Amino acid sequence: MSAPSPGYSITLRVACPTDPSATARLSSAIAEAGAMVTALDVAESRHDAILVDVGCNASGQEHVEQIRATIEALDGFTVDKVSDRTFLLHIGGKIEVTPKVSLKHRDDLSRAYTPGVARVCTAIAEKPEDARRLTIKRNTVAVVTDGSAVLGLGNIGPEAALPVMEGKAALFKRFADVDAWPVCLATQDTDEIVQIVKAISPVYGGVNLEDISAPRCFEIEKRLRDELDIPIFHDDQHGTAIVTLAALVNALKVVGKKIGDVRIVVSGVGAAGTAIIKLLLAEGATDVIGCDRHGAVTEAKPGSGEMREWLVAHTNLERRTGTLAEVLVDADVFIGVSAPDLLTGDDIARMADDAIVFAMANPVPEVDPVAAAEHAAVVATGRSDFANQINNVLAFPGFFRGLLDGGTSDITDDMLSAAARAIAACVGEHELNASFIVPSVFDPEVAPAVAEAVADVAKAEIAKGKTTEVGRS
Amino acid sequence: MSAPSPGYSITLRVACPTDPSATARLSSAIAEAGAMVTALDVAESRHDAILVDVGCNASGQEHVEQIRATIEALDGFTVDKVSDRTFLLHIGGKIEVTPKVSLKHRDDLSRAYTPGVARVCTAIAEKPEDARRLTIKRNTVAVVTDGSAVLGLGNIGPEAALPVMEGKAALFKRFADVDAWPVCLATQDTDEIVQIVKAISPVYGGVNLEDISAPRCFEIEKRLRDELDIPIFHDDQHGTAIVTLAALVNALKVVGKKIGDVRIVVSGVGAAGTAIIKLLLAEGATDVIGCDRHGAVTEAKPGSGEMREWLVAHTNLERRTGTLAEVLVDADVFIGVSAPDLLTGDDIARMADDAIVFAMANPVPEVDPVAAAEHAAVVATGRSDFANQINNVLAFPGFFRGLLDGGTSDITDDMLSAAARAIAACVGEHELNASFIVPSVFDPEVAPAVAEAVADVAKAEIAKGKTTEVGRS
Repeated sequence: MSAPSPGYSITLRVACPTDPSATARLSSAIAEAGAMVTALDVAESRHDAILVDVGCNASGQEHVEQIRATIEALDGFTVDKVSDRTFLLHIGGKIEVTPKVSLKHRDDLSRAYTPGVARVCTAIAEKPEDARRLTIKRNTVAVVTDGSAVLGLGNIGPEAALPVMEGKAALFKRFADVDAWPVCLATQDTDEIVQIVKAISPVYGGVNLEDISAPRCFEIEKRLRDELDIPIFHDDQHGTAIVTLAALVNALKVVGKKIGDVRIVVSGVGAAGTAIIKLLLAEGATDVIGCDRHGAVTEAKPGSGEMREWLVAHTNLERRTGTLAEVLVDADVFIGVSAPDLLTGDDIARMADDAIVFAMANPVPEVDPVAAAEHAAVVATGRSDFANQINNVLAFPGFFRGLLDGGTSDITDDMLSAAARAIAACVGEHELNASFIVPSVFDPEVAPAVAEAVADVAKAEIAKGKTTEVGRS
Repeated sequence: MSAPSPGYSITLRVACPTDPSATARLSSAIAEAGAMVTALDVAESRHDAILVDVGCNASGQEHVEQIRATIEALDGFTVDKVSDRTFLLHIGGKIEVTPKVSLKHRDDLSRAYTPGVARVCTAIAEKPEDARRLTIKRNTVAVVTDGSAVLGLGNIGPEAALPVMEGKAALFKRFADVDAWPVCLATQDTDEIVQIVKAISPVYGGVNLEDISAPRCFEIEKRLRDELDIPIFHDDQHGTAIVTLAALVNALKVVGKKIGDVRIVVSGVGAAGTAIIKLLLAEGATDVIGCDRHGAVTEAKPGSGEMREWLVAHTNLERRTGTLAEVLVDADVFIGVSAPDLLTGDDIARMADDAIVFAMANPVPEVDPVAAAEHAAVVATGRSDFANQINNVLAFPGFFRGLLDGGTSDITDDMLSAAARAIAACVGEHELNASFIVPSVFDPEVAPAVAEAVADVAKAEIAKGKTTEVGRS
């Protein structure tokens, strides 16, 4: 059973006896059931009973039932209702569309709407690049999914994916003042998705592809990059690569090693793993071994795709063979974006001295981080309940802010690197240690630093003609 | 030249002499140029000059130049800069996407985003109709255009249409708390538009089609109605029909006539005109004549389309022939949704006594409203600078509020009628007169009244099985 999480916080309404120690017995019962009381209010008092709202974090539905049963086993206690704060928060959705202009009187209307708006329309019709100045396009990102690979839940479809996309949109605004809008598509056909995103693109300054299953996600990204003049970001690839590199830059500092000297084993060579490897090589890594479920990747069978061929051509140049655990022996860095419980503490013990372990499979990492920490110098996961959470929220809001501010039509490796270095630099020299290699997602410096770094690269590349300025192409 | 409008309000920065009567001379010059000062501020004072920001309404670019020239003809006055308040207001767009949930600390994140959100996704995957409760779908409308018939500007394309769609979205929120989002499509292919709107529909509780040229708009609307389980509204048809009927209900009260007794001539049988005629017939009108540019419609040539055939079968049953002016003789009501300056005051004089004239072509009506008012009992236009503005803003926000609250999958004539009657009823018996047949768009009672009326019809029809409840189909 996983640990109780604030993502599963519940409120129980409990009818209790009126004696003075009733709430203490209630708290004890909840503790006995393996949860901790986070809030307690008397909601109503009657002659013969008090109604208490008590909040706690649970680990799952079974745990909720266990908490309820433990309370009801007490003499005189009844659970009237269990409400789930996560569901309460989702009622009616998490984002809204609000006017930025005053609409209080007739003159406001005649400027924001007819007849005044006609002049703005005419101006854009005559000079299309003015759309970025006179409309929301400049600040707007489409968060596009087909619901085929949502979180760890798989192919749950566009409606069920919407809460994730809304959450993403909320984070975009919260952290980087980007206006993002969910585009959840009722099709999983590659051609159709490309066609639709192209058709809706006039409203957007960028596209964030999200939770689309591989290998379709690669083709969709590539074709949209070729055919549209706005940047196409694939968070599962680019976002993960940025935060992984950021964490690695600081972890290497902690152990005093250089990226060009270390052997890196990457478990998982899907969208995330491949993007991580590409970025590490661009940053000067020389010895990277990719592993899939069969162990070290050494060959690309005919028809296994471009990505696999690229991988074989650029990684594991010594053609080491063996299982993940076997090729991990003497490696300096483990990066996992794959599956739960693939490794043990003993496997980590066989890595080189001062090993770095990023076990990012969610919700259960490739290796138990507590066991890993007995042998590795630095351990990080994707979870919020251990130190060093490697979280895409550190990257995507500021990254898009930078893309939009820089006015670029494309995303380059240099932008990804610059973003990673900016995140890494948000951990000050005096703060850096094995338990603090990445800043908090609530560090207000992160998004602006990422944005500035990305915009600077974008502007420099536009000046050099390496990329195009949007709306000037 | 049209009249100066607050839709074209400008601010001029003028360097003036320092003598005490300088600003008076400035105001006089502006008045001389046919504009009126709406604001005047001294922005900066120097030893030898003052810089004055002076605001006024212009009628067009030529008028702005004339104002500038008149000021600069004054001794010692220079215009440094002219800024256009409508353009200033549009910089960066008119709407934004904002979170409705707190995202202040880690626990917030773990409920609104991972890991908590996964439970909400799973719940929707298991029970898709819960998407309306747990996401934005319940309150969200797609404002869909292909930019082919924007305002009176024609086929200006999706980017140039965006300011109108943003304005519409802003009005939806301002008047009825509906979250509307612009969908400006880079295609004008009917099949593609239908396919795309279907594909993006999981996020939306309704679709508002806007500024799509006829006859494609009819086919798109019909096919989407058939294929989607959310209501499809076409503002150019339904919105216009609602406000026209609302105005007519009250105008008939003013002149003491009944809808079943009057002869109505409708000029313009495109999307708006046809929808108006349909609603009038549903409301009991018996004698309606439609006119196109060739005069009264009497026949449908082969291949002229379903709409035309319907029109011939249901209107002008006596098969009157002649020009618009000819069939208007002795008519009680003129409704124009066509073209500028088709009629003169003399034509209106030949209508029946106590004639009603709605000349809604924009920006220049079918007949000069001042001339019409010399002969008709009630005159209305689509313009904000005459009495009785027949404005779709009275209808669409509240109408969608009602559709969403009523949870209906379809739009029926009874809903359109109910909306029209609710708007008409917002003009109290003691307020009603020939110059006040429709309420102000800022009347806070209108949208809630429309919403309630529409939701009531929706619920009654769902109960009777005439329409389906969304998410329960």
